[in-house]
Parts: sequence; structure tokens; C-alpha cells
Amino acid sequence: MSAGVKTAVLGATGYSGLELTRILLHHPRLAKPVLLRRNHATDGGASLADVFPALSGNGSYPLQPLNWSALKRQGVQLLFLATPHETSRSLVPEAMAQGLRVIDLSGAWRLKQAQNRAIYDFKDSDSIRAAELTEKAVYGLTELNGERIANADLVANPGCYATSVILALAPLLKAGLTDRQRGIVSDSKSGVSGAGKEPSSRTHFVSVADNLSAYSVFNHRHVGEMMEQLHLNLHELTFTPHLLPIPRGILSTIYVHLSRQLRSCEVESCFRDFYSGKRWIRVFATPKLPQVQFSLHTNYCDLGFCLAEDGRRLVLISCVDNLLKGAAGQAVQNMNLMYGWKEEEGLQ
Amino acid sequence: MSAGVKTAVLGATGYSGLELTRILLHHPRLAKPVLLRRNHATDGGASLADVFPALSGNGSYPLQPLNWSALKRQGVQLLFLATPHETSRSLVPEAMAQGLRVIDLSGAWRLKQAQNRAIYDFKDSDSIRAAELTEKAVYGLTELNGERIANADLVANPGCYATSVILALAPLLKAGLTDRQRGIVSDSKSGVSGAGKEPSSRTHFVSVADNLSAYSVFNHRHVGEMMEQLHLNLHELTFTPHLLPIPRGILSTIYVHLSRQLRSCEVESCFRDFYSGKRWIRVFATPKLPQVQFSLHTNYCDLGFCLAEDGRRLVLISCVDNLLKGAAGQAVQNMNLMYGWKEEEGLQ
Amino acid sequence: MSAGVKTAVLGATGYSGLELTRILLHHPRLAKPVLLRRNHATDGGASLADVFPALSGNGSYPLQPLNWSALKRQGVQLLFLATPHETSRSLVPEAMAQGLRVIDLSGAWRLKQAQNRAIYDFKDSDSIRAAELTEKAVYGLTELNGERIANADLVANPGCYATSVILALAPLLKAGLTDRQRGIVSDSKSGVSGAGKEPSSRTHFVSVADNLSAYSVFNHRHVGEMMEQLHLNLHELTFTPHLLPIPRGILSTIYVHLSRQLRSCEVESCFRDFYSGKRWIRVFATPKLPQVQFSLHTNYCDLGFCLAEDGRRLVLISCVDNLLKGAAGQAVQNMNLMYGWKEEEGLQ
Amino acid sequence: MSAGVKTAVLGATGYSGLELTRILLHHPRLAKPVLLRRNHATDGGASLADVFPALSGNGSYPLQPLNWSALKRQGVQLLFLATPHETSRSLVPEAMAQGLRVIDLSGAWRLKQAQNRAIYDFKDSDSIRAAELTEKAVYGLTELNGERIANADLVANPGCYATSVILALAPLLKAGLTDRQRGIVSDSKSGVSGAGKEPSSRTHFVSVADNLSAYSVFNHRHVGEMMEQLHLNLHELTFTPHLLPIPRGILSTIYVHLSRQLRSCEVESCFRDFYSGKRWIRVFATPKLPQVQFSLHTNYCDLGFCLAEDGRRLVLISCVDNLLKGAAGQAVQNMNLMYGWKEEEGLQ
Repeated sequence: MSAGVKTAVLGATGYSGLELTRILLHHPRLAKPVLLRRNHATDGGASLADVFPALSGNGSYPLQPLNWSALKRQGVQLLFLATPHETSRSLVPEAMAQGLRVIDLSGAWRLKQAQNRAIYDFKDSDSIRAAELTEKAVYGLTELNGERIANADLVANPGCYATSVILALAPLLKAGLTDRQRGIVSDSKSGVSGAGKEPSSRTHFVSVADNLSAYSVFNHRHVGEMMEQLHLNLHELTFTPHLLPIPRGILSTIYVHLSRQLRSCEVESCFRDFYSGKRWIRVFATPKLPQVQFSLHTNYCDLGFCLAEDGRRLVLISCVDNLLKGAAGQAVQNMNLMYGWKEEEGLQ
Repeated sequence: MSAGVKTAVLGATGYSGLELTRILLHHPRLAKPVLLRRNHATDGGASLADVFPALSGNGSYPLQPLNWSALKRQGVQLLFLATPHETSRSLVPEAMAQGLRVIDLSGAWRLKQAQNRAIYDFKDSDSIRAAELTEKAVYGLTELNGERIANADLVANPGCYATSVILALAPLLKAGLTDRQRGIVSDSKSGVSGAGKEPSSRTHFVSVADNLSAYSVFNHRHVGEMMEQLHLNLHELTFTPHLLPIPRGILSTIYVHLSRQLRSCEVESCFRDFYSGKRWIRVFATPKLPQVQFSLHTNYCDLGFCLAEDGRRLVLISCVDNLLKGAAGQAVQNMNLMYGWKEEEGLQ
Repeated sequence: MSAGVKTAVLGATGYSGLELTRILLHHPRLAKPVLLRRNHATDGGASLADVFPALSGNGSYPLQPLNWSALKRQGVQLLFLATPHETSRSLVPEAMAQGLRVIDLSGAWRLKQAQNRAIYDFKDSDSIRAAELTEKAVYGLTELNGERIANADLVANPGCYATSVILALAPLLKAGLTDRQRGIVSDSKSGVSGAGKEPSSRTHFVSVADNLSAYSVFNHRHVGEMMEQLHLNLHELTFTPHLLPIPRGILSTIYVHLSRQLRSCEVESCFRDFYSGKRWIRVFATPKLPQVQFSLHTNYCDLGFCLAEDGRRLVLISCVDNLLKGAAGQAVQNMNLMYGWKEEEGLQ
Repeated sequence: MSAGVKTAVLGATGYSGLELTRILLHHPRLAKPVLLRRNHATDGGASLADVFPALSGNGSYPLQPLNWSALKRQGVQLLFLATPHETSRSLVPEAMAQGLRVIDLSGAWRLKQAQNRAIYDFKDSDSIRAAELTEKAVYGLTELNGERIANADLVANPGCYATSVILALAPLLKAGLTDRQRGIVSDSKSGVSGAGKEPSSRTHFVSVADNLSAYSVFNHRHVGEMMEQLHLNLHELTFTPHLLPIPRGILSTIYVHLSRQLRSCEVESCFRDFYSGKRWIRVFATPKLPQVQFSLHTNYCDLGFCLAEDGRRLVLISCVDNLLKGAAGQAVQNMNLMYGWKEEEGLQ
């Protein structure tokens, strides 16, 4: 195993970063990953086990300060960033200048259109280098952009909500089966780990338990990704995220008007054909529908649907584990493509 | 208190029935309610405390067999039914023949149109009497039908989902502000008590916890009520219920296209005007939105909204406690109207 | 109602303070309570509805800065403190100097013995006044100290765990039925509201959900109260608190060796006799046992037990809602005694 | 993989059976397991995916009727039973007569002493064969009975609670460090999957959520196992199980009086020495304590402790995932020993 490809992770102390680290530690093609912390960072300890006592007793997971020449010395080829988008925005140019390939789990490099990026508050002073990298970055939705991901040096790993929504809508939109004029609605619900590990009154147990709340209505960052990848405009897509009283998992209920009357078997074929051979997509046959539990702790995106008797109104259900297919799992899937390995390596 | 109006409850051993009983026991206008069980019923005990040990130690809540002449002897004037709709369908004609006024919490008498009733599987052999009562029954959505409820002898108390959806949509639809052609979507989520107390694999803790699932898509019984009360047809309303991992509470996220561009303050005025003076409706001012927790253990229906920048797409949020405003609380609110009492009596 | 006794609450923005405020607002003997915030406090808003949006739409709950002469002008007689113990320690002497009666929900004045108080880190510089008040304060466990509470000017409202443990053990200990030499164990479990409203990694939803953890083993502040009230020494009582994945409620499982062989009915009599006439204690008859749910949202302390076949080992189960009988409810119960009202006023 | 050892599972449609099947499907030493259903069984379907839709889309998991000659034809060597104890009691003699080795996850063969078996209601008519097998069966607590398990033909896999309690107490009891006269208490808490998949009012979501309850006080079946394995008598061990509002996981809080004053490091050494080299035991260094979350979805038993200042009273914390180390995981660990493989094969 020590002969494998050498990777490094910055941000292993967050929820996605921890999941990623767990997968990398057992990935058959990899050497033991280097776990990094930012210089002067005071995020809780000198090792991962200090932050996640669940790892106690399984040995040491020391965090080393981020230092480019140290990484070069250790032979690191691929850097994973599970960091806030501001951090990714500033570090990625440096990392790539060092010749590293990068998979960034933040939103820093996902968006091509300036008006969509506005929501991230990137400064106007964004360097020419950043503009170049924005152009160069490949949006890492594995099933849609596989070929480009294979050759990419910078992969912008998708947002968790965006993964669930784009994978559900892409087959129908590509086949021209939706009536976009009437608008598409995605009513999405996510577990609390999607809100990050930082304590806040919003993530306090008493605020979340026995509750459900909508938030960021008409104003969520992931809408930009959905629009760009699906070639929709702002008036065609309404996205409402909700905070569920569960630790992890996303379910999106998506409402589409079809452009012509279809039978249920035609809808199913559309999905099955589109995702033929795709290892991490499961299409459910009517009347079975995905549930959050089914894809938890897996890298699957589960897709199901229900067609109205009129053959025109379609309800899609799309579920992912926000920390796996919605973050760390898809990052590893992308790494597998970048190195020519099978998509499922290390993910079973 | 013993001088108050005498009521009886059949079905106090269910979740809604228990809530109803709790309210009736403390209602300042009522004598102690008579708690009934069906003859030969073997639903767990001779007293309510046998079924709900939480009541143990607070005295005795004996269940007496249903017997019309006994009820007459006890001076009962008003009968609450918190029973399956088949039971209500067969008992209500008898009860009314005895001169009792009835508030029925089941779906037995809510629907006027035969095609909507079809989903309840009422037999063709439904008697002429049943047809007459179907006609005569008043749909007990207090805020909409108050005057007719006041004079009714048979009130068909609304479904929990229907309450949350109708109250959210009525102001806009009455004002002609929605573009019905583009369709209305209600994505609704309910706590598990809405599924009833009968154990099943679906309500098993392990099936519900850490989960979210959609069910009865395009096929839920409450859609008929919504269509009839809102004068919508089948193609104009898409309703998807979901099972939340919480004991109680409903949140409906409702998507509407407006027929003309509005400002946020206009939407708010529409709601405030419509519900002016209504004690149990709370309209939230933008950008505050209702959450499930806020109306739990209250009789409130909380309404809030968010308008897209284009002034045409509107997201409504409507929350009720399914056992109170969605069932027992609204039943008591209706009783208050029927007897000329203030709407809030016994509900604070 | 405006003719009632005038009270004030400092700390209404915490969980216990909010519950207290809700009760006081509906208490039939009281005028509307004055809600206070500390000068320069930045705890989230100018009104309670800013902190708890659940109150939105129900009118205004303005918070006024704490100012002794303003309180005097408003005719306030009784001050409730739902504040950190350091705050209570510094404010109570001032309040009493103003002639106010005080019910303090913190741990500041509960302990008579210096070695027990040590855990609260009160400074050695504690004034003579503080020493006098420590002496004068009455421990507000209503069922045990009712007469002294009635005449008290300073009531130290008990801790939530302490309430559940002391009420369970007092009858047996007073009757001399326990073998203290063999040690008493209280294994207690509490919902998260007991940890307060301040966000922390410990109260993050993802840390609590799907989890159970013990904490402060051999080191919890409430042990001092238990020892003083029950006249136990440190070696006779082992107390282990646990954090439950629920918002509220406490269940203590208490293990006692009896000093002589008893029958189950004798144990039950011991409890029933001791708490005869006590409105807020419910003794469960074997084999029924209290559960957390049964006393939620009530002021009850539920007590049950199970005796081993050997007649010597006894397991006690004691449940309270930590925010009501364990805090705000008991505070109101104490107020009722202090003003000569019935114990249940405002608490039903 | 098809060249591996051939196993069969009866009871894959239960919670433990499903976990077991998942592990066996990925175990590197095994051929694909045969999944069995009982003749005439109507437990929900012809395949595992019918019962657990989470498996839908991953291919077919057909259930074949139990038939000894079919098993022989398929080359099955090892049979896992995840069945009710009555079923195991009747099937194991047949299976062993066919030359199969058996790992039984039920309580049918765990107990050597007739008075402990009484609680299982095995008939007096238990055959001589059953008596022989009772004698022959090896109690499958891997860390304690490893050598005998390696050579066993019938392994009685331990109960989930028993696993957590025995592993915590064995080191101290073997070292003679406990004062048994003063009694040992295990206050244990389990997730709901421990109560099985059968729907009941007790496992209804509304009964469990926001709740905690004790049950089977002084009367739980697992006490027999604990007493036999730890050589304790009935008066020395008090065990109280509780139902937690979580899907899975067990935490036992165990109270022990030490026979002599110890230092914390001595207690830690006692555990570390006893479990030296044991792959699936993690000993936590004071002051860190195990939590339910830490061992979820793993085969670990996590052990931690806290010693009172007096050096005599010890609180032990022991956590296992009830479906893994408490059931299916330990069963696979035992299989690994029986076939001479490394203990962790298939369990990482």
C-alpha cells in the first residue's frame, strides 16, 4: 500500500474532510494520506483523533502544517481541499503553481459566470491567475463530465444539493422532455452536517430536533451550479432548501412539467439509458421511491419518480448522502477517473 | 364546571382523540366529557389511563360503551368522533337521528363530489340518508366557513394537510392573484403521529429515524378537500406528502406563480387583510418564516412567504400542529363557534 | 389581570427563562411580568420575539434594561433570576437591598457547605452580605421545604437533576429504609436543553443525535445539593449524568440497597404516605414505570420503582421535565407558596 | 471469490441478519452466501430487496427455502441463524446432524444452567439431543473464549447487552479487584433495533422519540449470560436496560466497588493487559470516555472508566454497536476464528 499514489488533505477536521480521510485511508491504490492543518491554525489539536475521539485507540492521525516544499519532499501528487471557499480561492493558485493536481470540495471554482459567482463575495481584485483557473477548472459531477475530469488538474467538486438536483434533471433536460416555461421546482431537504461543524444557534440540537425549517429561499449558493450545468435561467428554476432533524442525507423532491404526454416506462427508460453503466446511480422502478436511509453511508445517488395520470406532471425523488456522493465520495470518484482507476475503487 | 355543556368523545384512545380529550377536560364551558368505546371493542383497556400511562396517577378516565340511550340519559348534546372514516360513515346517521350535534374528525363527510369520495371506498349502497348528510355537512375549516359552522349540526373537521394547504392558498386564490395555468405545488411534510397509532413497519422507529420519505404521490386523500375548498381542478394542484422523523407538526412549502408582478408588502397585505381578526392565524413578516417548532402544542396556523426578485414566483410556508389546528384544536374551535363562545376558549 | 402581583424576570432569553415567562404571562394572579435584560447586554434583541421567533405574531415582548428604581416605580415585588450563577451571586444582594423577594434559578445560593460551593468558583472575596444570604436562602424543593419557602425572601430554586434525585430518595432515607453503607447510585439522563442555549460543539445536532454520552462523572455540581438535602456524604452517593438525544426531560434510574427485606406494597406505601396531598408528585403502582414522555410539558415529578425478588435491591425511576419541575415550573410552585396561593395556580 | 467458503444465512430479513448478509457479501474469504427463508414463510418477499428497498438496484438477493439437501448440494459448510430462539432451538439439531457448523445469533444455546434457561420457556420435553448440544455449544464472546470457538461446531453468539457488560467487567473480575459483596450495577441503554423489526406499540416512532424508558427491570434474559460468563450470582448483579431514541448502539454505565484502593493508571493497565493484542477492543485513556457514536457501524467494543477520588468507586463505560459487535460483527469474528482467518477479515 505504501507504494501507492500520495495524496494530502487540508480540512480533515470538518465533516466532509473526515469522511474523505476515512475513504483515503482504506483506498487500495493510495499511500497513507498526509493530513494538513493551516499554519497557526488552532482548530483543536495536533491530530485528527483530538478532534474526533471516535478515532481514539486506532493509532495516530497527526496533522502537519501546510508547507509546499514539505509536500513536494513527501511526493504528494494530489491535494484535496475540504476548506471554506475563501481558503480554496487563495490556496489553489499556489498549489497548482507547485505542480499539484487539486480536487476542491468548496464552491470556489465551480462557477463560470460572474453573476453566479457574485454570491460568494469574491473580490474584484481576483487576480488574472484566478480568472484563468476559473476557466480551467472542471465541474466534478462525475456522471456528466467524466472525460474532462479524467484530464483535469483542478476539479471543482459539486455542492451536495447541486449533485442531487442536477443528476435528477439532466436526463430529462438533455432529452428535451421538460416544459421549462412552466418552471421547475426543487424542494430539497438536508441533514444538519450539510451546515458544517461550526456551532451556532441554528445547529443547536434544541433548534433542530422536532423541527423542520426552510432557509435561503431564492437565495442559495448552489442554484448557480444547477443553472450552469443544466443550462437553465433564473426564472426556470425555483430551489428551496430545508433543514431536516437528521445528521446526514439529502432528499430532493423535484416538480417538472413534461413537454409532451409520457408513459411511466418512457420516463424510466430515459433515466436508465442516460445512466447506463454508471456504477453509482440507482434508478428505482415505479412505484418504489428512494428514501434518505437507502443511500446513507454509500456513494449512490438514488433516483425515482412518479408520473401523474395526466402523463404531464412528473415528481422526481433524488437522494444522496451529502457527505459522500454529495462531497467526499464524489471527490474520490473523481480521483479514480483522474488516475485511470475504476470508479468504485475505495468506495464500496 | 359540572353545569357546562355535556360532550362525548369516541376514539379518545387515538392520538387526535387524546389531544381532544385533554382540551375538553380543561375547557371552561364544558362538563366533564363522556369517553366512549365501541361495543365489543378490545382497544386496550377499560380506561384511558390503561392506553396512555402518562395519565396514570391523575385519576380515572373510564371508557363507557357507546349506547345512544345512555348518552341521552347523561344529557350529552355534542358528539366528537375521532374514528376511522368507515366508522364515522356508519355512526353519524344514527347519532344525528338521536338529535346529537356531531363534529367528525375523519374524512367521512368532508367531500361533496363523488369522484373525490371515490378514494375512500364508500360503498355504492350508501344510503339516501348518507347522501343527505353529505350534502348537509359543513367543512370545518374555521377561518373560511365560520358562519355555516356556527349553525351546523354536522361538522366535517378538515384533514391536517388540507388545513395547512388551504389556509395558505385561500387568500391569494380569492384575490385572483395566482396563475393557476402554471400549476400550484404543495410539498408537505408531516410528523409521524399523522400516520396514526397503529403499529406498522412504516411507523417503526428504525424506519423513520434518520430518514425522510415521500408517499402517496399524486394519490393522497386530502387532495380532494383542497380542490373542493379552493375550487382547483386536478391538473392545477400537485401535492406530495412526506414523512418526517418527528412526532408531530406539519410544514407545507407551497409554490405559486402570481398572475401579475407583486411587491412583498402587497403579498403580506393580502394575507393580513384576509385573516384580519382571526385569532389562530399568525402571518409572519418577511424575511421571517414559520418553522415546525413554532406552532407545536398550539392551535396556530403560521403563514409566511418569500417572493422571488422577479415578483412572480412565490414560496409560501404554512405550519400547523397536525394534532391541534390540524385535528383536535380546530374541532374545539368549531365547537366554540357552534355554541357562540369565543374562538379561543379552552385553547390557550 | 392587571391588578395582580407584579413580577420581573431577568434571563427570559434562556430556555428556563422562556418557559418561566410563558407561565407567568398566563398566571391568573399576576400582572404582566416585566422582562429584563442586563445593561449593555447584546443577547440578541430588544424583545423576546427577536430571540424566539415562535412568539412572533403574538404581540410584543419588549426587554427593558435592569434598573432598580424603574422596577420600584413599576411596583415589582418579586424578581426571578434565570441567569448564570455568577450573575445571580452579584445581583441578589442588590435586589434584596431594594426590598425585592427573589427566586433564583441558578446554583448561586443553593449550598450551605463551603466545600460543596467550591465547585462554583465563588471568590474568597465573597462579601459578608453574601455569607448572610447564603445562610438565609431557602432551598426551593417545594415538597420538602414548603413551610420555609412560604416565608422566604430568597428562594434558591433546585437544579434539575437534583430535583429528580432528591424527590426519589427522600421518602426512603427519611424512613431509614436504605443501607447507605453499600452506596446509592443515580444514573441520570437529561435532554439537551439542560445544557443551556449557548451553541457549542457539544450541543451541535450532529454531536448529540444518534448518540448517548456520560459526562462530569464524579464531578457534577448538582451532587452538592443532593448530599446536603439528603444528608449523605460523598462516599454514599455516586451520580452519573448523561446527555440524551432529546430536547428536554430527565430520567434518573436510582439503585438502592434496602436495610431490611421489604415487600413491594411497603415501598409503594412509603412513597404514597410521604407525598400524600402533594399535587405535583405522581407515584406509579408496580409494574408501571414512569417514562420521560409522561411528564414532558408538565410540572409533575413521576416516581416509580421495581423491587428485586430478594426484597433488598430496589430500582427507582424518577422523571421530570427539566425546564418545568426541574426549573421554571418549580419556581412558580414556590412563588405560589410565597404568596399563599394554591400550589397548582398557573401550572395546569 | 466464488472459490471461497460457502455459507448460508437464515433470518437475513431481520436487522442483525441484514447486517450479517452485508458483511458476508463483501468478505474476502467467502463465496456468495445462500440466503434462506423458512418453508411457507410469508415474511415479505422472494428476495431481500423486497424487504429492504435500500438494496434495490444493486441486483438480486433471492431467498431460497430452507432445505438440507439443497444446502449440501450447494456445498454450504457454515450456517448462520439470525432467528427467534425457538426456531434456533428446533433447527440446530437438524443442521448439525447434516454436518453443518452453526453460528446461532439467538439465545437458544447460550446458557448452561437450567435455572437461567427457564426464562426462555424451553419445554421440559427438550430432547436429549438438545441437552447434549447445550453442553457442547461454545459461548461466542470472541475475546474471552477464542480457543474454544476456533474448534467449535456450534457457537452461541452472545446477546448485545451481555457483550457490552461482560467485556467491561471481565478484566476486573478476573483480577479479583471488585468487591462483589457490595453489588455491581449495569445501567444499560440500547437503540431500538435491539428490540427487533416486528412493529409494536413499543417501537412506534411516537412512543420512542423524545423519550427514554426502562424495561424488564430485574427480569431481562441477558442477565443469565452475564452471570454465567462472569461467575456472578443473582444478588451480585443488578442490570437495568433502557430504550433509547436512536436506531442503534448500546452504552452501558457500570458501577463497581473496588476491593482495594486503586490509582487510575492501575485500572487502565488492568484493561490494557487483559485485552492486549485484541483487535476489536479499544481502551480509552482517562479522561476520555466512549460515546455511542464512536463505535457505530464498527465492530469495536469501546471501554473507558472514571475512578472516584476515594479510589474505590469505579464507573465503567462500555459501548458497542448492537448489530455489529453485539450481533453480526461478532458472529463474523467468530467465523474468522473457526476457519483460522485473521479476526478482522471482512470487518474493516
